[in-house]
Amino acid sequence: MQNIFSGFQATPTHEAVEELLRSPHVRIERIVSNGQASPEGFWYYQDESEWVAVLEGRAAIGFENGEAVELSAGDAITIPAHTRHRVLWTHSEQRTVWLAVFYQS
Amino acid sequence: MQNIFSGFQATPTHEAVEELLRSPHVRIERIVSNGQASPEGFWYYQDESEWVAVLEGRAAIGFENGEAVELSAGDAITIPAHTRHRVLWTHSEQRTVWLAVFYQS
Repeated sequence: MQNIFSGFQATPTHEAVEELLRSPHVRIERIVSNGQASPEGFWYYQDESEWVAVLEGRAAIGFENGEAVELSAGDAITIPAHTRHRVLWTHSEQRTVWLAVFYQS
Repeated sequence: MQNIFSGFQATPTHEAVEELLRSPHVRIERIVSNGQASPEGFWYYQDESEWVAVLEGRAAIGFENGEAVELSAGDAITIPAHTRHRVLWTHSEQRTVWLAVFYQS
């Protein structure tokens, strides 16, 4: 049994990324952030599509076209494959727990 | 944008099952229970594997071999394809929010 809300190794300087499931077509990750953001100029660019939810905390994801989406607890979006995106910010005073499902679309 | 923790249609007599994502290889569902359990003698039997988490509330899943797993908020298990299982109970006094990822294994 896994628990999404416990067993973190996140620190103020590092996000904790853990793989909860890996199968041929899908991968599930739990990510815990403590105020981190993507480095300036960095973009995620993935061959897989991603369904991502914020389960605790708050965060914002930015896209190459300038759009930004703010996510509070429970909010989920789908990011199509090959869509450049980055984490603009995560809550600075509480942990942000993400659940990300990467899949071949 | 979707929100996992809001917009429920669950009632004391019916579970609310909503599809959050459907793609060729993966399907994500949000299920909200209010004390429901699987009917006596009923077993889920699926061609897909399932990664399932309880995000709120509490529940128990039973398996054909007699094993039972109790899930509290954050707990997640993987149920391989073709594994008979059923919901033994869900919390009777608060909602139970499940997140289920079905995938071809």
